[in-house]
Amino acid sequence: MPRVGIAGLGMIGGSLALALRDAGFAKEIGAWDPDPEALRSGLGTGVIDRAADALEALAASVDLLVLAAPTLACDDLLRRVLRMPDGPQLVTDVASVKAPLCRVLDEFDDDVAQRVVPGHPIAGSERSGVAAADRGLFRDHRVILTPRPLTAATAIDVVTSMWKATGARVSTMDTDEHDAVLAATSHLPHVLAYTLVDGLAQAPTSDDIFRYAAGGFRDFTRVASSDPVMWRDISLANGPALLAALNDFETHLAKLRRAIEDGDAQALENTFRAAKAARDGYLARQSAELTPQEV
Amino acid sequence: MPRVGIAGLGMIGGSLALALRDAGFAKEIGAWDPDPEALRSGLGTGVIDRAADALEALAASVDLLVLAAPTLACDDLLRRVLRMPDGPQLVTDVASVKAPLCRVLDEFDDDVAQRVVPGHPIAGSERSGVAAADRGLFRDHRVILTPRPLTAATAIDVVTSMWKATGARVSTMDTDEHDAVLAATSHLPHVLAYTLVDGLAQAPTSDDIFRYAAGGFRDFTRVASSDPVMWRDISLANGPALLAALNDFETHLAKLRRAIEDGDAQALENTFRAAKAARDGYLARQSAELTPQEV
Repeated sequence: MPRVGIAGLGMIGGSLALALRDAGFAKEIGAWDPDPEALRSGLGTGVIDRAADALEALAASVDLLVLAAPTLACDDLLRRVLRMPDGPQLVTDVASVKAPLCRVLDEFDDDVAQRVVPGHPIAGSERSGVAAADRGLFRDHRVILTPRPLTAATAIDVVTSMWKATGARVSTMDTDEHDAVLAATSHLPHVLAYTLVDGLAQAPTSDDIFRYAAGGFRDFTRVASSDPVMWRDISLANGPALLAALNDFETHLAKLRRAIEDGDAQALENTFRAAKAARDGYLARQSAELTPQEV
Repeated sequence: MPRVGIAGLGMIGGSLALALRDAGFAKEIGAWDPDPEALRSGLGTGVIDRAADALEALAASVDLLVLAAPTLACDDLLRRVLRMPDGPQLVTDVASVKAPLCRVLDEFDDDVAQRVVPGHPIAGSERSGVAAADRGLFRDHRVILTPRPLTAATAIDVVTSMWKATGARVSTMDTDEHDAVLAATSHLPHVLAYTLVDGLAQAPTSDDIFRYAAGGFRDFTRVASSDPVMWRDISLANGPALLAALNDFETHLAKLRRAIEDGDAQALENTFRAAKAARDGYLARQSAELTPQEV
């Protein structure tokens, strides 16, 4: 059983700690966070066993270090940990964007970089902070690992076991494909929802607009209640893929705008039918069995 | 107690019939639908008391007629009913767009048009058909009436009572304001969600895209599982207001795109913060008490 360290004790890090504790995966779970209050809360509620007062102190005393800090912060934390002569055997992370982390790995020799398995649990909530930790957060959710050709197979195995212990379904994917897929299904919807709500809030009739908004609006905009700083960082970290997804979306939106302008009933119906079929199919597949591609 | 007629027995008409029956509001509930199967189902499940074989036959035998047909069909139904010499005392409707219906009223003399109270229950579901009727559909949901200056006060009173009997909160609003508010909070989100899903379904990596889509995507795109024909009609009926809402949205989206391109962290954070505050405030108000403006 490894000693696990969690660098960054927020909602994700706290949820991971609780799930690993339930599964009996770790010998001990330590944590470090720049905010001492998060560590006090984590210790007080039994989320972690031990608090370290510095990243390096935590990293030197664990076998498996999980960087669970905000996306933009992970790069620097990884750099600091990989520069340590007595760093942990194994490092993984939970950042929502994988390309920047892979660029950090390029700065290091292969024998150092091979210990790192970039990862991303596709689970979240509009809540944040260790007080929002949820032991079931990862159950039946997907975790994508984006190992590189040089990543040690044993490192991938251990990180896979860790996530499976939380009840998650683990897959591997190419770094750029990960960032493109997440831009399309997660980062772009966040940007669109934030944009819509911010725009409506600035409208002269915004009081009425929000008063008469119904369930569809509430669901459509749920992601706009997410942590603004986290999504600022994700938008910056995944800028190129996000702009590519936005370009595609705007091309399709321009077509639909023309159909509305032209009163083109058939074009509107075709688009809406195709979208409904795709979404209904997605829901059906979601509830179906795991596919053989998965680890 | 009025005899109520429902012209168009789908999910909305069926839910209204069930709710009025529970409330003991109607002496009798009759219905007409171009699809005989809908009427058979409505009779068989006790949703309605009586089926009429023609719109005019229903209209001649009720005190209060509710047009619950698809948005584009309501105009023609209203025209037919108002041309009857022995038509009902009172007519209302449930169409999602109010301007086209008001234009029909302009074709008639004031003493005919004054019997009509345009209305719109802001309640729905991605399900459709009378089999999806739900007796609690309108409870605590808003209904907007858009009477005109000449509309008879007693007519407004009766239609208000009908909707209150279903548990709904009834407000009145100007026709154009209604269509603009609904374009912003409902019609535009549908168009955006349909566009996103249709675009992703056409992407070369669409299998992976949908496989790794998480909860945020599911909520954001829920409205894209709505009835394509209904939303085709709404997009056509409310074209001008929808395009105006789309223009506003695209102006805001262009600003956010520039912020991503420029790596402007502050602009991104400001937008996301403002949107989160607006949405959190909207949720808080939604769960708060009724405002005094309401009827």
